[in-house]
Amino acid sequence: MSANCIFCKIIAGEIPSTRVYEDPHVLAFMDIGPVIKGHTLVIPKQHVDPITAAPADVLARVMTVVQKIAQAQMNVLKADGVNILQANGAAAGQVVPHLHFHVVPRFKTDGHHWNWAAKKYDSIDEMKQLAEKIKGAL
Amino acid sequence: MSANCIFCKIIAGEIPSTRVYEDPHVLAFMDIGPVIKGHTLVIPKQHVDPITAAPADVLARVMTVVQKIAQAQMNVLKADGVNILQANGAAAGQVVPHLHFHVVPRFKTDGHHWNWAAKKYDSIDEMKQLAEKIKGAL
Repeated sequence: MSANCIFCKIIAGEIPSTRVYEDPHVLAFMDIGPVIKGHTLVIPKQHVDPITAAPADVLARVMTVVQKIAQAQMNVLKADGVNILQANGAAAGQVVPHLHFHVVPRFKTDGHHWNWAAKKYDSIDEMKQLAEKIKGAL
Repeated sequence: MSANCIFCKIIAGEIPSTRVYEDPHVLAFMDIGPVIKGHTLVIPKQHVDPITAAPADVLARVMTVVQKIAQAQMNVLKADGVNILQANGAAAGQVVPHLHFHVVPRFKTDGHHWNWAAKKYDSIDEMKQLAEKIKGAL
C-alpha cells in the first residue's frame, strides 16, 4: 500500500467504491466518471506504477480479469465491442498513479469517438530510424 | 494463420512491415499511421481475436513485450508517458481483427488529447445496477 494513493485506499476500503470483482490480487470497480456507462477499472492490489514496473505475474492476473470484465460487458450489457485503455504518466492522461486498465463497453450507437488522428511520417526513413532507436533499447 | 488477415500476412512476411521486436510468439512493428510518431503495435503470432479469446500464456507474452516497448519509448524517444490501447469490435474502433496493442509514446508537448469525455450516472443506483449485472456474468 502506498500512502496517499486513492486506489490503495479503495482497495483497503477507506474510500468507497462499487466493486465488480475481487480476488486476493486484483480488484475491479466501476469508474464513477464513465466514458460509456458500464466503464470498469481493473487494478492490481499491489501498488505498481507505471506498467513497465509491473512484475509479469501481477500483470498477467490483471489481464485475466480485464478479459473477464470485457466478456461480461459483451454478455450482459450487450456491448458490441470493448476498448481497453491504460495510461502511464500525466502526459498520457494518467490521473491516479497506480496501474489501472479501463475496460469500456462500446455500442454501435454510443456516438463516442476517440480522437484517433493517424498521422504520417515525413518519410519511410523517419519511421525506420525511430524503429531502430526503439530496437536498440530493447 | 488466418486467411486474409493482414497481420497474419505481416507475420508471415507476405506484407512488409518495419519490425521492432520479434520472438517465436510475439511481433512488434511500427504503425504506419501513428497517432504520435514512434507508435508501435504488439501482436501475438497466433491469430487470436478478440482479447477475450486469448489464452492466458499468449496474452502474458504479448504484455511482456508491451512493457518492453513502452520502456524503450521512454528511454530512447524520451517519451514523458505512454498510452496502451486495445480495441475489440468495429464499435470500439477496431480495424484489423487480430489482437493488437497500440503502444503510443506521449510527450508533454504533443498536443494530443483523447476525447475522454467522462459522463455521470443519473444516480448511484444506476451505476450499482450495472455493476450487479456485470458481477452476475463473471
